[in-house]
Amino acid sequence: MKRLSFAIVAMALCLNTMAQNWRQQGSRVEEHTVKSEVLKAERSYTIYLPAGYDQQTDRTYPVLYLLHGMNDTNKGWYERGHVKDVIDQLTASGEACEMIIVTPDAGGNIMEDKWNGYFNMEGWNYEDFFFKEFVPMIESKYRIKADKAHRAVAGLSMGGGGATSYAQRHADMFAACYAMSALMHLPPASAEQVATGNKMAMLTDAANRYSCVDYVKEADEARKQQLRSVQWFIDCGDDDFLFDCNLDLYQEMRKARIPGQLRVRDGGHTWEYWHSALYTALPYFSRIFGK
Amino acid sequence: MKRLSFAIVAMALCLNTMAQNWRQQGSRVEEHTVKSEVLKAERSYTIYLPAGYDQQTDRTYPVLYLLHGMNDTNKGWYERGHVKDVIDQLTASGEACEMIIVTPDAGGNIMEDKWNGYFNMEGWNYEDFFFKEFVPMIESKYRIKADKAHRAVAGLSMGGGGATSYAQRHADMFAACYAMSALMHLPPASAEQVATGNKMAMLTDAANRYSCVDYVKEADEARKQQLRSVQWFIDCGDDDFLFDCNLDLYQEMRKARIPGQLRVRDGGHTWEYWHSALYTALPYFSRIFGK
Amino acid sequence: MKRLSFAIVAMALCLNTMAQNWRQQGSRVEEHTVKSEVLKAERSYTIYLPAGYDQQTDRTYPVLYLLHGMNDTNKGWYERGHVKDVIDQLTASGEACEMIIVTPDAGGNIMEDKWNGYFNMEGWNYEDFFFKEFVPMIESKYRIKADKAHRAVAGLSMGGGGATSYAQRHADMFAACYAMSALMHLPPASAEQVATGNKMAMLTDAANRYSCVDYVKEADEARKQQLRSVQWFIDCGDDDFLFDCNLDLYQEMRKARIPGQLRVRDGGHTWEYWHSALYTALPYFSRIFGK
Amino acid sequence: MKRLSFAIVAMALCLNTMAQNWRQQGSRVEEHTVKSEVLKAERSYTIYLPAGYDQQTDRTYPVLYLLHGMNDTNKGWYERGHVKDVIDQLTASGEACEMIIVTPDAGGNIMEDKWNGYFNMEGWNYEDFFFKEFVPMIESKYRIKADKAHRAVAGLSMGGGGATSYAQRHADMFAACYAMSALMHLPPASAEQVATGNKMAMLTDAANRYSCVDYVKEADEARKQQLRSVQWFIDCGDDDFLFDCNLDLYQEMRKARIPGQLRVRDGGHTWEYWHSALYTALPYFSRIFGK
Repeated sequence: MKRLSFAIVAMALCLNTMAQNWRQQGSRVEEHTVKSEVLKAERSYTIYLPAGYDQQTDRTYPVLYLLHGMNDTNKGWYERGHVKDVIDQLTASGEACEMIIVTPDAGGNIMEDKWNGYFNMEGWNYEDFFFKEFVPMIESKYRIKADKAHRAVAGLSMGGGGATSYAQRHADMFAACYAMSALMHLPPASAEQVATGNKMAMLTDAANRYSCVDYVKEADEARKQQLRSVQWFIDCGDDDFLFDCNLDLYQEMRKARIPGQLRVRDGGHTWEYWHSALYTALPYFSRIFGK
Repeated sequence: MKRLSFAIVAMALCLNTMAQNWRQQGSRVEEHTVKSEVLKAERSYTIYLPAGYDQQTDRTYPVLYLLHGMNDTNKGWYERGHVKDVIDQLTASGEACEMIIVTPDAGGNIMEDKWNGYFNMEGWNYEDFFFKEFVPMIESKYRIKADKAHRAVAGLSMGGGGATSYAQRHADMFAACYAMSALMHLPPASAEQVATGNKMAMLTDAANRYSCVDYVKEADEARKQQLRSVQWFIDCGDDDFLFDCNLDLYQEMRKARIPGQLRVRDGGHTWEYWHSALYTALPYFSRIFGK
Repeated sequence: MKRLSFAIVAMALCLNTMAQNWRQQGSRVEEHTVKSEVLKAERSYTIYLPAGYDQQTDRTYPVLYLLHGMNDTNKGWYERGHVKDVIDQLTASGEACEMIIVTPDAGGNIMEDKWNGYFNMEGWNYEDFFFKEFVPMIESKYRIKADKAHRAVAGLSMGGGGATSYAQRHADMFAACYAMSALMHLPPASAEQVATGNKMAMLTDAANRYSCVDYVKEADEARKQQLRSVQWFIDCGDDDFLFDCNLDLYQEMRKARIPGQLRVRDGGHTWEYWHSALYTALPYFSRIFGK
Repeated sequence: MKRLSFAIVAMALCLNTMAQNWRQQGSRVEEHTVKSEVLKAERSYTIYLPAGYDQQTDRTYPVLYLLHGMNDTNKGWYERGHVKDVIDQLTASGEACEMIIVTPDAGGNIMEDKWNGYFNMEGWNYEDFFFKEFVPMIESKYRIKADKAHRAVAGLSMGGGGATSYAQRHADMFAACYAMSALMHLPPASAEQVATGNKMAMLTDAANRYSCVDYVKEADEARKQQLRSVQWFIDCGDDDFLFDCNLDLYQEMRKARIPGQLRVRDGGHTWEYWHSALYTALPYFSRIFGK
């Protein structure tokens, strides 16, 4: 302390309070939009680029697609999940490797009639958009190691179900999946409600059609074999109202001899839970990417 | 899952995403201002009131004064520190007791010539304001157990130094103090700079005059005895630029046989560090309040 | 360091290496036997007495009954579970309160035809022994707060099932129960095997008759009300071969609206799991005893 | 649970209780002796070989030398540190990679006049033995990646000082060093005591001559550069009587701009501290070995 001058301390304190990331100012977060033919719409996304991305121009990176929950957008993982702060700290300590993180926008306020969900629905084929337009665009625009071994998907709540379903149905594309407090299954919506075009009813219907639990329960040996090529991590609080469907999936996976990790920690369906899950998820992906 | 109807799930998902605290909607956060004679100014503060505060009208609570850092205000612990979410979760699990949390405003952007700091400075006697006006006002307006055994103070950076100094110089008032990444000491500012009335120079000068390290180093046995009546917890990251002065204080306390806890975790001078510190600090205070 | 003389350092190093508990030499562990009329046998038990037990002769303490697993005896929690080291550290830091810990002996090598189990079996009414002889003897011989609010039970594997069953069927006696990797249920043994007097078959039969899962599933409202008077904590590894029956119990409790905590951590049916569980269990009991 | 038969459950329970490592029975621990020309004595060592070591006969492994404390021997890390159980669990979960762990014997009861220490002393040149005989023997007898990138050293107390000193003076040999509650420095022993040949006095003298703190303090730029080629981790409890010399080393390293990690957790000079440190140390080494 004695060697620090007044000016340096003052500067440091100011910089710290403002930047909050004094060791990792090199990493950055950008928000962009992409025009979709499938959706007939512009969609936003946020991308985290690690420190040194601009300097080491021949280096490629693994990628994590990080999905938000219902009523939220691509901004949530940054504004409340603080994913930039977490990955910066974990790469500084060596617990996580440098990676690119991409959060697409699959939501907005459903009460204001915004489309929510990662699945194909009549008039809003989001899954098609994601795999046919979004991923190819991202992986050509940024220097990404575009193979199964270096691609992972994670998400919370509706996005946890989306992540699981994407990794189940596109098992050839993902090395690993980490589901937080995930909506793994819903009972069917009534046909009348769906027919009205009510977006909540259509989302419920899609979540039922894309049930992650049934996808395992109904799996034949070939599908089970595909599912075993992904590393699975399920993380759900003991007070979460979605607890049962997460356990249902884990128990179906055990029956089908598909290895996976399960954690049940204290907590409910909250951002505190999801934020703290990043401290497990990002090192987990890093170990898998590093192999 | 099978028993949840479409409407209930939809409702739950919406409420969750919006409220983020489905189990603890009873607790609440208010922002108010107080008019200070000492400062000749209005100052804001934020207060957390636990669930049931309005119903159990004959119940009194312990109180934590939680201090922010430089360039920040009373809002920071809520907007980025998420202290409401943390205390709600910890009281739900039983790891923390119900308490009232108060964050005063001792800052703002110092580049815009805002006063910063918890100490008395020429023209801005904040310490006098705090002990003569603010604490008495808070503890008469809210149902607080207004004794040493149920009062604690904590803070980060400049507020960690403030918390430590308050508990040192007013040891009869606080049961415990938890300092995060604290500014415990600064070398003297030049007399010329202080004389100009530059607020950063005046803050530096105050931090030197109120050095927490010197306060222990120069303690006689009577003062040491007072200091032993408080429970001390120092928590500082191994990459923090304020690391040395935190260790200096801990080592001076060991020499003076003043018991205290020290933790050095991974990290720098960041909100991730301070947010995670709440998970140690709030149960720590709760154990002390419970005695 | 500079002030430590050669002799002091040498002494300290020796004492430390040998005693391993330099701060808490006051606590102690004793092994005794008790003669049982019910069992027509002598049974061992181990008891942990906190520091100061002999000095503060008018002080009484809460009590934890800590049950071992199959093929093990009262020694296991000390020799491999290191419960003395854990409680000494947690009381030193304030995370646990001072308590008396009692481990009875309900086992031995079943291959050598030793009786195992906490339940009543033909010719070995261990549950009767425990509640009619053992607990009354312990609570009169040692200075224990002998009421529901200050009595808890915990155990691992077979002892986790024993702890849960004891707290279920004697809910008026226990404030809390912590089950680790517990044997909550077994399918019925064949009547022929049981009739041979084979002790493993008799134990299996007893574990089926005393099913913790069925006890909740079959509960009427009066029993549910009793069960809600106990605080429950279930802790089981995601790789444990007993995982399913732990989840079965938790889900039955949720259906019956009996509050409880669940944790699923990484791990299998190992002492590493149970040892680390003590760091959650002992503070948990301490918070409950402290109310 | 319903599908498990009586016999399978019984078998599983027995195997578990006896083996305690049902998933990792493949790894094993052996104890051997080596005859030393330097010491004119036979010395024991314990070696951990990961699962599959005998089957994958063309595979080589990174190696960790794990050093015990004073009055202890090669057995301590297994009998009380449970290092086999920890590494088995961490490799099963993927948090640690498969590695060979070697614990040499540098001790015994010093009160019975046994030699203790990792340094060269008159008549007992242990450091020479270690580097000239022991490491070459181990790395030719077992399938070890015998290079700096895949070799690490760790230890507790006297062994933490030994590990640090070995990695300082043989920086070209080790990728990383993890010191637990380490004896980094001692004040000089009196010449008379050393001259008597008293082994405690000789050990104290050696610990002073090999001071880890002075080695950094006195470093020129060339030595600093060597020291920066090792990754350093210092882990010491806030109640440890060796706390000060660990902090002294860390602060000297900061001054010399040698990067390192520091953790101060709750606890003293105890096996609970060292056992829990393995959960940080083994993943830490694994990340470094994996690069």
